[in-house]
Amino acid sequence: MQFNIEKFSREIMVRKDFVDDCLQQYLAEEDTFPPVIHKAIRYAVFNGGKRLRPIMVMEGAILAGGSREQVVPMACALEMIHCYSLVHDDLPAMDNDDFRRGKPTCHRVYGEANAILTGDALLTAAFLTMTRNQEMPGVDPVHLLRAINEVARAAGSQGMIGGQVLDLEAEDRTIDYEELKVLHRLKTGELFRASLRAGAILCGMNEEGLAALEAYAYHFGLAFQITDDILDVKGEEALLGKPVGSDARNQKTTYPSLFGLERSRQLAEESVQNCLTSLQPFGTQATFLCNLALFTLHRNS
Amino acid sequence: MQFNIEKFSREIMVRKDFVDDCLQQYLAEEDTFPPVIHKAIRYAVFNGGKRLRPIMVMEGAILAGGSREQVVPMACALEMIHCYSLVHDDLPAMDNDDFRRGKPTCHRVYGEANAILTGDALLTAAFLTMTRNQEMPGVDPVHLLRAINEVARAAGSQGMIGGQVLDLEAEDRTIDYEELKVLHRLKTGELFRASLRAGAILCGMNEEGLAALEAYAYHFGLAFQITDDILDVKGEEALLGKPVGSDARNQKTTYPSLFGLERSRQLAEESVQNCLTSLQPFGTQATFLCNLALFTLHRNS
Repeated sequence: MQFNIEKFSREIMVRKDFVDDCLQQYLAEEDTFPPVIHKAIRYAVFNGGKRLRPIMVMEGAILAGGSREQVVPMACALEMIHCYSLVHDDLPAMDNDDFRRGKPTCHRVYGEANAILTGDALLTAAFLTMTRNQEMPGVDPVHLLRAINEVARAAGSQGMIGGQVLDLEAEDRTIDYEELKVLHRLKTGELFRASLRAGAILCGMNEEGLAALEAYAYHFGLAFQITDDILDVKGEEALLGKPVGSDARNQKTTYPSLFGLERSRQLAEESVQNCLTSLQPFGTQATFLCNLALFTLHRNS
Repeated sequence: MQFNIEKFSREIMVRKDFVDDCLQQYLAEEDTFPPVIHKAIRYAVFNGGKRLRPIMVMEGAILAGGSREQVVPMACALEMIHCYSLVHDDLPAMDNDDFRRGKPTCHRVYGEANAILTGDALLTAAFLTMTRNQEMPGVDPVHLLRAINEVARAAGSQGMIGGQVLDLEAEDRTIDYEELKVLHRLKTGELFRASLRAGAILCGMNEEGLAALEAYAYHFGLAFQITDDILDVKGEEALLGKPVGSDARNQKTTYPSLFGLERSRQLAEESVQNCLTSLQPFGTQATFLCNLALFTLHRNS
């Protein structure tokens, strides 16, 4: 398989634009009462993000024999959850970040109280939007409830939020490789897993297919995190929209700090290889997800 | 109808104990990994609350011809939402409260970052728990999705969170009666409304019945808020578990500040009368909810 980064970047951009249009539709207008929170919600969501999670929801649907249109509300909901988690992670009591992708963080613009409420509102809106997937043709309510259940589990105290708790506990102390893997699996891997599976569940994928997607998501999460750590060492601030070297300054345990850059790159490549292997049952249908894994090795932001 | 406060207090206590047993079952154990968040979640939930919202979910179910057992997960979920909102409202960036019902607030015990995550985790757990209502006999998945949709709407940026935004905006300035009514309807009324309706929807109540419950919830919310304001002036600190007079110190607009104590009491009584009128279609079946409205006039905490 030939991987063409420019061509694939354009493919991602088309999907990102489609997701942004969908989010426009499923988020309340800025002047909805009370306006300050609805402005802040849109500020937090339209932030230049790559929309990986909604794209995954839609790919899961397609691999299950459905269409991306069928799972639009679920896809938007996964992005809302991701965006709420960024707003809360950036808060002064958490990571205390002033900038994200080159723009002032939500609490810097709207104040801390409104930022807390904006995160709460996005998380709530995510579940509201999920229930609206009922309006889509060919979606079984029992499948939808199962998908909501899986997403809630992945985003909760034994999933993404649990990962954030571990991340806070890991500040200013060295953790070992096993702890680091658990932290990343919870903090980023669980939501990738839920995204792929939710779209596939809504379109009736069987358990074998769901297990293959789960394996892909696990290795994708690893590759994504390792390259994230590498970018913090070697990336360009202008492209990342945030200062590089912050992990080292904060004495965070990362792949480069545990293994060095060279070995970290190898580990990322191995994870991507595992992604490709996981997708074999789907054949050429899974080309996009294969390329998405390869893309993590080449990303610069 | 004869209202006996002692007898009814015992009736509420029996239901509260039942709700507490259910919450024990639907919340993760304290030692679930990572333990700190699961300890904090239980600290935030087992706080001596009256469990009004879950009790309302169960009453809605009974009035629809169902049973309280059928709606246990939904009932627990509504309490989780209420508890998350208290944890976030108490944060330093919000109301900055050190005590709630006589106990240190969540962020005083577990730190600010963990308190933010505890609220997030409870809100997420609420939706996870709602999906589990599918396991109950006789619950239609389409009804369950509708109930989840209504609860998410009531808890979101155009419901409870919107009310909290208005409350923050109303600090240190005088608002008029119309604004005060909107604030209270959103901040407390919406969740009462969603509680009653969610239980009723799960058990198949018709639109006419749902409209009657909605009217009750609106007037109940008013009566509840007015008596809350009165208690802040006239209540006993030992029973309330918090200092009285805080509204006046914070220059908050309240019913007593707008109308004086005497007229506020009259308004509360009128709201309770409207509650009783709303329930007439249900006849004697609705005795508990009638008494619950009368109870607000006699409560001391």
